[in-house]
Amino acid sequence: MKSIPVLLMGCGGVGRDLLQHILTCRSLHAQQGLALRVVGVCDAKSLIAVSDDDLLIAQLTDPFLKEICRFKASSPSAPLSDLKTFDECVIYTTESAEKVVEIASNLGRSTGLVVVDCTASAETIGILTRVVDLDTIPHIQSFTSFALDSYLVGAGLPVITSLNRILASGDYVRCMIGSLSGTLGYVMSEVADGKPFSAVVKEAKSLGYTEPDPRDDLSGMDVARKVESLYPDKMGPGKMSLEDFLGSGLPLLDEDVEERIKAASLRGNVLRYVCIITDSSCGVGIQEVPKDSALGRSKGSDNVLEIYSRCYNKLPLVIQGAGAGNDTTAAGVLADIIDLQDLFSS
Amino acid sequence: MKSIPVLLMGCGGVGRDLLQHILTCRSLHAQQGLALRVVGVCDAKSLIAVSDDDLLIAQLTDPFLKEICRFKASSPSAPLSDLKTFDECVIYTTESAEKVVEIASNLGRSTGLVVVDCTASAETIGILTRVVDLDTIPHIQSFTSFALDSYLVGAGLPVITSLNRILASGDYVRCMIGSLSGTLGYVMSEVADGKPFSAVVKEAKSLGYTEPDPRDDLSGMDVARKVESLYPDKMGPGKMSLEDFLGSGLPLLDEDVEERIKAASLRGNVLRYVCIITDSSCGVGIQEVPKDSALGRSKGSDNVLEIYSRCYNKLPLVIQGAGAGNDTTAAGVLADIIDLQDLFSS
Ligand SMILES: NC(=O)c1ccc[n+]([C@@H]2O[C@H](COP(=O)([O-])OP(=O)(O)OC[C@H]3O[C@@H](n4cnc5c(N)ncnc54)[C@H](OP(=O)(O)O)[C@@H]3O)[C@@H](O)[C@H]2O)c1
Ligand SMILES: NC(=O)c1ccc[n+]([C@@H]2O[C@H](COP(=O)([O-])OP(=O)(O)OC[C@H]3O[C@@H](n4cnc5c(N)ncnc54)[C@H](OP(=O)(O)O)[C@@H]3O)[C@@H](O)[C@H]2O)c1
Repeated sequence: MKSIPVLLMGCGGVGRDLLQHILTCRSLHAQQGLALRVVGVCDAKSLIAVSDDDLLIAQLTDPFLKEICRFKASSPSAPLSDLKTFDECVIYTTESAEKVVEIASNLGRSTGLVVVDCTASAETIGILTRVVDLDTIPHIQSFTSFALDSYLVGAGLPVITSLNRILASGDYVRCMIGSLSGTLGYVMSEVADGKPFSAVVKEAKSLGYTEPDPRDDLSGMDVARKVESLYPDKMGPGKMSLEDFLGSGLPLLDEDVEERIKAASLRGNVLRYVCIITDSSCGVGIQEVPKDSALGRSKGSDNVLEIYSRCYNKLPLVIQGAGAGNDTTAAGVLADIIDLQDLFSS
Repeated sequence: MKSIPVLLMGCGGVGRDLLQHILTCRSLHAQQGLALRVVGVCDAKSLIAVSDDDLLIAQLTDPFLKEICRFKASSPSAPLSDLKTFDECVIYTTESAEKVVEIASNLGRSTGLVVVDCTASAETIGILTRVVDLDTIPHIQSFTSFALDSYLVGAGLPVITSLNRILASGDYVRCMIGSLSGTLGYVMSEVADGKPFSAVVKEAKSLGYTEPDPRDDLSGMDVARKVESLYPDKMGPGKMSLEDFLGSGLPLLDEDVEERIKAASLRGNVLRYVCIITDSSCGVGIQEVPKDSALGRSKGSDNVLEIYSRCYNKLPLVIQGAGAGNDTTAAGVLADIIDLQDLFSS
């Protein structure tokens, strides 16, 4: 049986579902000769981990992991340190980041360790760069699927795996164009059906598709840095309240969006809010795409990625599916962990 | 540098493009610390291989592989033994199958060997079962991506990789539905646009999308065994000549197809010729699919596969792209070979 130590940062929506999936898959993984050994779980304020003496063999037990999931589902804003029952484990409420680095460094020198970041925090970047000890990178890189490129794009969609396959076969990627924000995908396909922009944004908000302030989605910042915002600067979060934006700001944008849709339609195109990457450029914004392309025909909140390469030159390789959802995203993270199994010895 | 010995059976369209890709990727693979060492190439009548004494180190040289490609492109029906120039190699014109098994057995015990089947022949199945020595299966299975499931579906599309990811993450596949015949995909989407079935089949034939006798596609045998044929028994190849089928048989089918399309349309559906796999059943035939599903919206000869699972339950994970073409298929085969790299030692 091959044992893979795992330390999980973040037990909100995705992290919690990841723990659930790990529990559900116990027997499946055992059949494959694998056991995921969860040595620690942390949230923003605390870390629960096995004691230093037991680091090489112990794990947080399954009933305790279940209890963590239950607790975080019912009291999302309470820290793990408020848990009533505890395992044979240690709880760190200060210096938890230091402790994560220490555990990673200890296990990194012996069994190896998968550190999973399921937070939405920029703070963990500092932890991650310290965790990935420069000594281990050459070792990691000698394997096909290695930690550093095994991250997630489009929730659980097999984007990175598929790109790796294309590159490994010597095919040459010319361009990628994708709608990787479920929210903006929904908005753009609904306005194409003739509904006013303002009504669609409010609808998306009431369906729970948007962030509490929908401008967080409309600014495009969720997708990349070089972006075209769907609202002008003067309606930005610092300058206009959320109520004013929803009430009087948003409807002012309807006419402009409608005109752009009509102009595109004359050219047989529809508008989509996409991310485009070519050899020489990368951008995010509204783009006309052919009405009958996979992107043009996409509906609802699905993510769509089109990859054009030497092999897929006229018609792209298309990968499409739910690009959000804790369950799906967590399943993708688990698949990434399992992909790393060859790095660990039995 | 890790050296991966390769023996190629079949150097028609796909096999030839595979050799080309291997040559083109030499420096890319070198950067990844890999070298593909082609120890033998065979067609239906002959095998060209390095000599037994050199089996552990030698390879067919790149200029010679280029010459093989050139020769097979210009004289597809001539056997490799008609080649004018030869490398330091041996040519077998009889017992070439025996020789393939012998080489595989020798290398299987030492360096390992990737045997690639790019023929359309049933004869090679016998060779492959003998080549995969039962002793080696447990060893192979201890790796993530192992030979036996690293085959091709939908030409180069990342179908198997994506399925492996889904299964590894404990997600549960409920149903797969796909249009995996480019020819039938084209036919079904064109008839949905109102053209007569007979005209579309003839069009597909003239575009080179079909086999010389289009009934080879229309019978569905290319897709699976349990199939619904698009023509009745009495128009079968044994009972009606190709001319009669194209001339008088085919138009008799137009009305029936038209009626089925209309009936589907009343239910908001379109007809597609699909393969469906669920927990309990597997079948191939004409199926109504929602007009606005990925399958329903597919156009032209693209392959489309929809995977429904616990995670992808309302909207499926969709993989779509060119499902044929020597170049694309060969790129997929090469990606499969590279996927096996962890099985070989440096
Ligand atoms: N949900 C999706 O559909 C989806 C899809 C694709 C990608 N993602 C990405 O996945 C990530 C997680 O999403 P989510 O929905 O699970 O977020 P979430 O529900 O807000 O959970 C975030 C978790 O991270 C913890 N955390 C925050 N800062 C931390 C720190 N410095 N150190 C350790 N833990 C910290 C939080 O702790 P507290 O519990 O103490 O607040 C919380 O448990 C995000 O980056 C998101 O963009 C999500
Ligand atoms: N082309 C595509 O787009 C595509 C897509 C998906 C899958 N495929 C599959 O890929 C396979 C190859 O397709 P293709 O288009 O390359 O076919 P092809 O052009 O007909 O080439 C077949 C090759 O196999 C050789 N061969 C036949 N019997 C053999 C035997 N018993 N031992 C060794 N070699 C033998 C042939 O030798 P000779 O040269 O002596 O005739 C020829 O070189 C087929 O199974 C096809 O269904 C093709």
